[in-house]
Amino acid sequence: MAGRRQVAGGGPFSLDRIAAAIGCRIADSGHGGRLIEDVATLETAGPEHLGFYDHPRYREVLAATRAGAVVLAESHVHLAPAGTACLISSEPYRAFALAAAAFHPEVRPPPGIAPGAHIDPTALLGAGVHVAPGAVIEAGVSIGAGSVIGPCAVIGAEVALGEGCHVGAHASLYHCRLGDRVRVYPGARIGQDGFGFVPDRHRHLRMPQLGRVIIGNDCEIGANSTIDRGSLGDTVIGDNVWIDNLVQIGHNVRIGRGAILVAQVGIAGSSRIGEFARLGGQAGIAGHLTIGPGASIAAQSGVATDVPAGETWFGTPAQRSQTSFREIVLLRRLARRREN
Amino acid sequence: MAGRRQVAGGGPFSLDRIAAAIGCRIADSGHGGRLIEDVATLETAGPEHLGFYDHPRYREVLAATRAGAVVLAESHVHLAPAGTACLISSEPYRAFALAAAAFHPEVRPPPGIAPGAHIDPTALLGAGVHVAPGAVIEAGVSIGAGSVIGPCAVIGAEVALGEGCHVGAHASLYHCRLGDRVRVYPGARIGQDGFGFVPDRHRHLRMPQLGRVIIGNDCEIGANSTIDRGSLGDTVIGDNVWIDNLVQIGHNVRIGRGAILVAQVGIAGSSRIGEFARLGGQAGIAGHLTIGPGASIAAQSGVATDVPAGETWFGTPAQRSQTSFREIVLLRRLARRREN
Amino acid sequence: MAGRRQVAGGGPFSLDRIAAAIGCRIADSGHGGRLIEDVATLETAGPEHLGFYDHPRYREVLAATRAGAVVLAESHVHLAPAGTACLISSEPYRAFALAAAAFHPEVRPPPGIAPGAHIDPTALLGAGVHVAPGAVIEAGVSIGAGSVIGPCAVIGAEVALGEGCHVGAHASLYHCRLGDRVRVYPGARIGQDGFGFVPDRHRHLRMPQLGRVIIGNDCEIGANSTIDRGSLGDTVIGDNVWIDNLVQIGHNVRIGRGAILVAQVGIAGSSRIGEFARLGGQAGIAGHLTIGPGASIAAQSGVATDVPAGETWFGTPAQRSQTSFREIVLLRRLARRREN
Repeated sequence: MAGRRQVAGGGPFSLDRIAAAIGCRIADSGHGGRLIEDVATLETAGPEHLGFYDHPRYREVLAATRAGAVVLAESHVHLAPAGTACLISSEPYRAFALAAAAFHPEVRPPPGIAPGAHIDPTALLGAGVHVAPGAVIEAGVSIGAGSVIGPCAVIGAEVALGEGCHVGAHASLYHCRLGDRVRVYPGARIGQDGFGFVPDRHRHLRMPQLGRVIIGNDCEIGANSTIDRGSLGDTVIGDNVWIDNLVQIGHNVRIGRGAILVAQVGIAGSSRIGEFARLGGQAGIAGHLTIGPGASIAAQSGVATDVPAGETWFGTPAQRSQTSFREIVLLRRLARRREN
Repeated sequence: MAGRRQVAGGGPFSLDRIAAAIGCRIADSGHGGRLIEDVATLETAGPEHLGFYDHPRYREVLAATRAGAVVLAESHVHLAPAGTACLISSEPYRAFALAAAAFHPEVRPPPGIAPGAHIDPTALLGAGVHVAPGAVIEAGVSIGAGSVIGPCAVIGAEVALGEGCHVGAHASLYHCRLGDRVRVYPGARIGQDGFGFVPDRHRHLRMPQLGRVIIGNDCEIGANSTIDRGSLGDTVIGDNVWIDNLVQIGHNVRIGRGAILVAQVGIAGSSRIGEFARLGGQAGIAGHLTIGPGASIAAQSGVATDVPAGETWFGTPAQRSQTSFREIVLLRRLARRREN
Repeated sequence: MAGRRQVAGGGPFSLDRIAAAIGCRIADSGHGGRLIEDVATLETAGPEHLGFYDHPRYREVLAATRAGAVVLAESHVHLAPAGTACLISSEPYRAFALAAAAFHPEVRPPPGIAPGAHIDPTALLGAGVHVAPGAVIEAGVSIGAGSVIGPCAVIGAEVALGEGCHVGAHASLYHCRLGDRVRVYPGARIGQDGFGFVPDRHRHLRMPQLGRVIIGNDCEIGANSTIDRGSLGDTVIGDNVWIDNLVQIGHNVRIGRGAILVAQVGIAGSSRIGEFARLGGQAGIAGHLTIGPGASIAAQSGVATDVPAGETWFGTPAQRSQTSFREIVLLRRLARRREN
């Protein structure tokens, strides 16, 4: 945001240049030379800012904005104030994200090992790796080029990271292998023993946990989330999986490419989540289940059976959303009728 | 508690002095000279202890207590045993809290920077700041007078803390600004990137996260809780907000003064929680909603619509509690009738 | 798993020796001399591996396995392929766990204090204790023989650990006392202040938190779980309690021996969980309740009343499972009928 010391912006850019970079057309080409310094919300933007609009909830905010330019759909151009240049896109939010990235290229700390990092001499660090103070890197670790290990992060013995990874402060990684460009947020826990034991009235017997966690490329592992190592096989997270904060993933779970797990989701052991499935916040998946590709589980649902591909489920126990909502509506109707 | 080395008590005090300090009246003024050494539960208290009573659940415990004195309402004085002096209060729990604070003044570690702390030379530390071993303080940080930075805590670049703050072990603070007397518990995560991206079948596109977290005065941020930085605008926590453990607060959320968030609550992006609202444990609030001032959301509720000020809601999807309970009762009745 | 550098196996062993060690009988005694190198899943096992079978879900996997041997019930021997030796057990999973432990004896790091650990000179460390880099051990701590303190773990003043404990990376322990052989997973938070205050429209008044956390022998405290210290009395965890990841335990909670708490469970202040009770994932227990010994609370349930010993409860608000399911079934039937 403008005026904040901590953000190094890439601008200013002319509207022509922005439009070309993000694949938009300028509604009034006379505005092409206008200089934009940064992105901003429509509420806080001034003439030097680019905003975006894609939800009728913010229609009045758009009408009142002072933004120099706005990204929006062609059908909404008439809603913008006269002074605001319009960048037309069929996907305004996507185009805006590209613009924001242009103004705010990711800043990586300079290569090197900070004083106060503890690195085992057998660890292999690729070119340009940054290790922050207090980080601990154990024996046999390998870290790909350009990766960043944050302050007080712990990388356990034999762990392998690909290139361009970012491990946040206080994250701990054990018994795992990460692909390229994986971002592990602060306090995430990867590869500790799972919850495996044989119940016993005398004393529960621990089941040794022997597997790993395998994480693909371009994943995000949210703050304070936990991913247990496999018990015999491995826990596997496919490419481009996005995991929010405080998510629990049990041993031997397998998550397909592009799946999205919102905050506080819990997945019990050995369940499989299909490609591009979406699990809403606080949803829970019981063990040994299969959630089909593209399925969508509503927030707080409790899933106790397999879910077919592409379906939307809701409730505890979860079922097809339309079935759940039909029951909710019926109960409300019955209760109201009884009241009257 | 008496006999524990780690607690430095402020007593003993006479009952007269305690009564004056906490705004109580002694039922039998002849007890005013009695010396009290510490607070305790009614169950474990001896003649040297002060207890309190404010719930009929503990009526028998009160009758059997050996406590030297008890704080309670005037109407309950007759329930106390003969040997126990009564301190009368219209708010017994509040009065007892004041007494407990008098016996147990907060102990802060001595000012100074421990060996093994990593502090960037550009950081500004106020008078009397304590920094524990293993803490990491990055460039441009400013920390107000009398603040305590716990062991292995990480304070990211440009973060600003007010006076008298306490940052617990392993907490991480980035892109944020805290008021005075904020207590951040161990492992809390403040200011990391939020869950922002443009979904895409090819590869989800990251939305740069550019905002901050602004926290007011006298807040508590519970252990292992997570508060994401704003995406464009800021995430804002008002004064005197109490946040319990393992709570998730998404980007751009705004929480009003005095709100109370019990453990494992989750608030999705851009929602607003009104002043003095209360969210029960494990409750979830969907994105872009408004919870009115003074509203109360029951534990485990899933809120999918705005909630008016002052109302009590329950259920998933949440509605007014009386409506929810009416439906629950109706369904129970129908099921029982069918059974018979 | 075979071929992974990081695991030091105890084998190979002959089938005869394994059978004797885990209390099994070999179906065809001619196989007793066969050498087994490791345990594995039936899917990935080769002739040098031992697998196990105990659920019909995996019947086809058993029929197709290449495992050298399998542990299973006598009644399932006919399901195994001809080349696979059968170890017969009345408790196959238990026997397999014993075998896995024999092949994978727990590896503890060598005794000693790593450079970069911060240990107060008044701390008492028993024989054979290992302290990893970045760990912080404060004044008056005592740590029993053979315990392991992981990287960047923080052990607060006066904390006492028994023998053979394992404290994971970034765990923080304050105001607590642990028995023997307790395993604290990475990022667990033990003994911080609980959520105690007197609500107030002006400013919430903190209730000083003065108690401890007392943990018995042979407990597991999962990754990023949080256990608050008692307010006046103590929070108490009995022997052999298993706590999964991201679990919240409020102040003054008491948990009986052998209880099992699955991930993301939350228990509000002062509730009591009986011996060998089981709380399913994401279940929530309100404050001041009693869950009887051996009771079972289904995943995601919200318990608002006491639960008698040995019963199985489900739902929000929770009730006996059979009652909850009867209502669910009735509602589904009514909604379907209405639809037709």
